[in-house]
Amino acid sequence: MSGWSDSSGTTLDDYTGVYAQRVAGMTASEIRALFAVANRPEVVSLAGGAPYTSALPLDAIGEMLRDLIVNQGAQALQYGIGQGLPELREQICEVMADSGIDAAMGASPDDVVVTIGGQQALDLVARLFLDPGDVVLAEGPTYVGALGAFQAAQARVVHVAMDDDGLIPAALEEAIKATAAAGRRAKFLYTIPTYQNPAGVTLSEERREQVLDICERAGLLVIEDDPYGKLSFGGQAPRPLRARRRDGVFYLSTFSKTIAAGLRVGWILAPHAVRDKLVIATEAQILCPPHFSQYAVSTYLATMPWREQIKTFAQLYSERRDAMLESLADLMPAGMTWTKPDGGLFVWATLPEGMDAKAMMPRAIAARVAYVPGTGFYADGTGQQHIRLNFSFPPAERIREGVRRLAGVIEQEMAMRAVFGSGSGLGTAPSAGTSWPGADNPGLA
Amino acid sequence: MSGWSDSSGTTLDDYTGVYAQRVAGMTASEIRALFAVANRPEVVSLAGGAPYTSALPLDAIGEMLRDLIVNQGAQALQYGIGQGLPELREQICEVMADSGIDAAMGASPDDVVVTIGGQQALDLVARLFLDPGDVVLAEGPTYVGALGAFQAAQARVVHVAMDDDGLIPAALEEAIKATAAAGRRAKFLYTIPTYQNPAGVTLSEERREQVLDICERAGLLVIEDDPYGKLSFGGQAPRPLRARRRDGVFYLSTFSKTIAAGLRVGWILAPHAVRDKLVIATEAQILCPPHFSQYAVSTYLATMPWREQIKTFAQLYSERRDAMLESLADLMPAGMTWTKPDGGLFVWATLPEGMDAKAMMPRAIAARVAYVPGTGFYADGTGQQHIRLNFSFPPAERIREGVRRLAGVIEQEMAMRAVFGSGSGLGTAPSAGTSWPGADNPGLA
Repeated sequence: MSGWSDSSGTTLDDYTGVYAQRVAGMTASEIRALFAVANRPEVVSLAGGAPYTSALPLDAIGEMLRDLIVNQGAQALQYGIGQGLPELREQICEVMADSGIDAAMGASPDDVVVTIGGQQALDLVARLFLDPGDVVLAEGPTYVGALGAFQAAQARVVHVAMDDDGLIPAALEEAIKATAAAGRRAKFLYTIPTYQNPAGVTLSEERREQVLDICERAGLLVIEDDPYGKLSFGGQAPRPLRARRRDGVFYLSTFSKTIAAGLRVGWILAPHAVRDKLVIATEAQILCPPHFSQYAVSTYLATMPWREQIKTFAQLYSERRDAMLESLADLMPAGMTWTKPDGGLFVWATLPEGMDAKAMMPRAIAARVAYVPGTGFYADGTGQQHIRLNFSFPPAERIREGVRRLAGVIEQEMAMRAVFGSGSGLGTAPSAGTSWPGADNPGLA
Repeated sequence: MSGWSDSSGTTLDDYTGVYAQRVAGMTASEIRALFAVANRPEVVSLAGGAPYTSALPLDAIGEMLRDLIVNQGAQALQYGIGQGLPELREQICEVMADSGIDAAMGASPDDVVVTIGGQQALDLVARLFLDPGDVVLAEGPTYVGALGAFQAAQARVVHVAMDDDGLIPAALEEAIKATAAAGRRAKFLYTIPTYQNPAGVTLSEERREQVLDICERAGLLVIEDDPYGKLSFGGQAPRPLRARRRDGVFYLSTFSKTIAAGLRVGWILAPHAVRDKLVIATEAQILCPPHFSQYAVSTYLATMPWREQIKTFAQLYSERRDAMLESLADLMPAGMTWTKPDGGLFVWATLPEGMDAKAMMPRAIAARVAYVPGTGFYADGTGQQHIRLNFSFPPAERIREGVRRLAGVIEQEMAMRAVFGSGSGLGTAPSAGTSWPGADNPGLA
């Protein structure tokens, strides 16, 4: 390379030759490209993943923040330490103790690292453990942001099938064997055991122990991502994996769904031996998390009824989940199936055989409804037959209207297929073990 | 590796075999280790780098935040987009336009990416451009957080000498040649041209053009880090590099020193062709920057006298700089030299010949004064004879007291050396081209 790009305004990417190798693996998520159209006001978006921040006590939070800045502004607006505000790390331990991750289980503020939401926690784990070519085992489907973090680390994600009880232990054992047989190294299992994103399912009590046993035998670390565990509709979620084992399990969570996403305050509870390395890694990345957000969260936890507010969110989402499940049952054509979440934000639906959710998207948008096509949640190009539907943000009547529109699109699609057949170019992609829970695992191919 | 660590509480690091290779390069900065002792109230810390947040109009900011959350809380507490709040990116362009980086120079809100302070901007650049073994050219000494980000990317930093007019163009040409001769690839020049951290010097007008020409000829990108450019004491800083060339220059800055560090809001103005990749990289890392901080900064810029507030900071730091320079001149022994900054936060001082700033630290702490030893600002182990002194945070009388204590420590050290010689074990390290501005460059050794 000699010289820079010229000033004539050409759009040529003259930087191609300078990028690091990892840039080749960085591709925009399908969800991102979608949001531009899905956010038009006439579209009912079931594509988001946003909490309903309007349900927050905004006046009280406003007063709280004024007092915070007036009384402690010089500290709250100052640099902090990389690991995060000590008072907040104490409070995070109280929040975790509610879920059984307590001092008896070795949880300590010393081993908590505050992060920029759950995403930075994932990225730090990737940075700490993943060399190019390393394998990560993860549920199929899984959180799209985790795929982004692992792919940025040039790792390979191998999906493990789920059913209505979450991750299938036999499939996990199979994936571990297949990875070893392929001469690759699996570094960890990444799992969202409770109210999974996007599948909406929860790993059962029995399977939690089985999964932990399998990972321990295989020497595989467990990265437990638990953003939704406190958003239970009615029942109580099974205890987190970290509440069952103290060794080999990293626990990641966030205040994005329990307080507010716009604060971007999450955390990792790391094994003690790893904590220092995490702090060094986060300092290289962001120097320190914002004192401003951390003081806000810490003051909120200390002065506001945060447990009651979580119940308010859960009650609201529960009603919206009901609206979604009822209208799906009322309106969807035969051949369509979906999960029935006991908490969280999402329903995962499976289209009738042979249909392609991504190809159907333009027609859904034309019918003023948006969802996320399933392929975004797989690293291996599968998931064509699936869609993710969000019920936390749109009000119940919008959910019903959205499902009504979507049912119309699907029925029309089925009618067209009945007339023109599957070779009509209407969006049928070759199916390769894509049914959910798919047992096939093309991740090592 | 088989099985996890046992539960007996052993502190053995059982994760050693699982870490990614890049972890080997992650070492805690010397500055961090220092802060624990330096922050004791009886110690006068000249070791920090904190802005004086008590000079902010805290009551007004408190009211502003209350109104923001009461009126726009549902948006301000919601997720945002990876690139950052559009209104804020418009305002960032106004802030840059004040420094000559305007629309005529191709600056556009479309090409701004909001980051978690300047540190994440650095980390994103490292992630985008640095493969293991790549070379980064950087001033010697340079910002310790930049060293952390580049080392986390497994890059090698080659220092380029400075003098009172900043980076020496001939030394830059030399370093480019030496890197090529060693068969390595220099990806970019990282430079803080204005009120440099830690050196406190500013690249002169003439040299700015020379440095840009040299880099353009060599096809070397320029990463311009400008956190301090608006903190001028009296005169006006020379225009940034990005105000002179639109191609090949990345401009990084932050509101940490102009508004508040605890917000952690910084940005990159990137060449258009690179912008998309930066957005994907930041989404993999943090999903999106906090709406909460971004709305706070945006509202502050829209409703408060932010230019006047920067003048308030600059006036205050200017008085403290005077206090530091005067007491250094009054109290320091012969053989000691220091820079005379026209802006920013730091003075860079050179101890009398043969002295080692790091070895002297315990005695300085015992005398209740702290500084940062120069070695922290070099990637190659040099810098023993130097110290960084901060004048933005301690009030003038504390600065004078700190310099008085420090002068005593240095005089005692010199007296001991006079009695016992340089082989006394009092902290003399072998000197290897460490005088500032050193022309030697062991970075490729």
